[in-house]
Amino acid sequence: MKKNKPFITLVGAGPGDPDLITRKGIKAIMDADVILYDALVNAELLDYAKPSCVKIYVGKRAERLSTSQDYINKLLVDYALTHGHVVRLKGGDPFVFGRGGEELDYARQFNIDTAVVPGISSSVGLTALQQIPLTYRGISESFWVITGATSDGKLSNDLLTAVHTNATVVLLMGYAKLPEIVALYQQQGRGDLPIAVIQNGSLPTERIALGSINTILEEVEQNLIAVPAILVLGEVVRKHASFQRVMQQAQLLAV
Amino acid sequence: MKKNKPFITLVGAGPGDPDLITRKGIKAIMDADVILYDALVNAELLDYAKPSCVKIYVGKRAERLSTSQDYINKLLVDYALTHGHVVRLKGGDPFVFGRGGEELDYARQFNIDTAVVPGISSSVGLTALQQIPLTYRGISESFWVITGATSDGKLSNDLLTAVHTNATVVLLMGYAKLPEIVALYQQQGRGDLPIAVIQNGSLPTERIALGSINTILEEVEQNLIAVPAILVLGEVVRKHASFQRVMQQAQLLAV
Repeated sequence: MKKNKPFITLVGAGPGDPDLITRKGIKAIMDADVILYDALVNAELLDYAKPSCVKIYVGKRAERLSTSQDYINKLLVDYALTHGHVVRLKGGDPFVFGRGGEELDYARQFNIDTAVVPGISSSVGLTALQQIPLTYRGISESFWVITGATSDGKLSNDLLTAVHTNATVVLLMGYAKLPEIVALYQQQGRGDLPIAVIQNGSLPTERIALGSINTILEEVEQNLIAVPAILVLGEVVRKHASFQRVMQQAQLLAV
Repeated sequence: MKKNKPFITLVGAGPGDPDLITRKGIKAIMDADVILYDALVNAELLDYAKPSCVKIYVGKRAERLSTSQDYINKLLVDYALTHGHVVRLKGGDPFVFGRGGEELDYARQFNIDTAVVPGISSSVGLTALQQIPLTYRGISESFWVITGATSDGKLSNDLLTAVHTNATVVLLMGYAKLPEIVALYQQQGRGDLPIAVIQNGSLPTERIALGSINTILEEVEQNLIAVPAILVLGEVVRKHASFQRVMQQAQLLAV
């Protein structure tokens, strides 16, 4: 059997809809000898692989996060050395909280060449699909993407700063902390700030809850929102086509 | 002639490499009756359009920015009403400083249905291609994308806040203000912060300059960097494969 050159490509699969991967990402999949893929990757993308390609699911189990990242690093290198081109297929973009940097660091210890194919991050992609502009002249001249899953389990210090700015804030993996985030914004007098919560974005099962900081906890309950979901905080959320209607309904019910 | 239903789709073309558009974006182009496209869009993407499709270049001229946005808005609506499906093909992502929000607002005044197809923003895509992780455990738990081209011509207030955080900062359309930005970071005692400047990212003409805040002005001169270029500021830039080598060379030359 011909020995293929060891090579590792991190590929962003996008937020869920298999049509939201790039052409460059598809070409990498077609060339792969081995694919290691995550829980949030759409399995339809594996159909682009050649018949001989080895496909391995490495979705992490929450209870064993760090062990399993070490395990994935080792698999990546082992398969590159024995099989050739390994594609690491990750949800969203490989570098947006995807731990892609750690995988590259590990591969480089073994002098294995690497490449990265960007993906549509859910932060940019799911807001776009809902027609919420991340930036808008006169409203927001930046957007700030923050993890809700810090290593110490607390809210990120960056979010404590972000609450004082006009930046559009997108929080990934932060849905479980929504009550804490609502309390933070209320304490800072920002209870009227618009917020959107998008679950299963880009998939047929997509749901959205719209509201202000003051109303969003009720809205997510009424709309039966669950994980995985992203939070979008900022005046730009007012631009969503249904925002006015939802706020008027909430006011009628509150009377 | 059959009258097509008026419809406007904003499509992100990605940062330049025609393989960095999504499959969904290509499908929209294939369906378009009219395409209005920007200066930073790769012209190869127009080849996906059907033969009857009307293709119109609407790259803005710097000296007439606001007029020309009004003009583009009008073209979008006029063509939708007369021709049917208009695709507005924009560099990067339509909502990352792309004024896509304003185009949707205008279209809605005429009750024209709209959709948005996200694109790879240069902020996420060009850093990924250079294998600079936007986030990294223990180094950066967020990234902040800020415009360098504010309406009043000054540095964004968001950047004045960002300099005090550990967020990875990506500045788009800010290259002309690099000396001002260097001065800001130096005043705040952050002269050692790593920074990357990426020109023509994802294209065959791509160039990069790496350095610290203190050395970057010399580096961009030596590497003949020019617009269009993005700036990436943060400790994560140290993860670029050439960072150590460039810093050592700069030190040798400085002795």
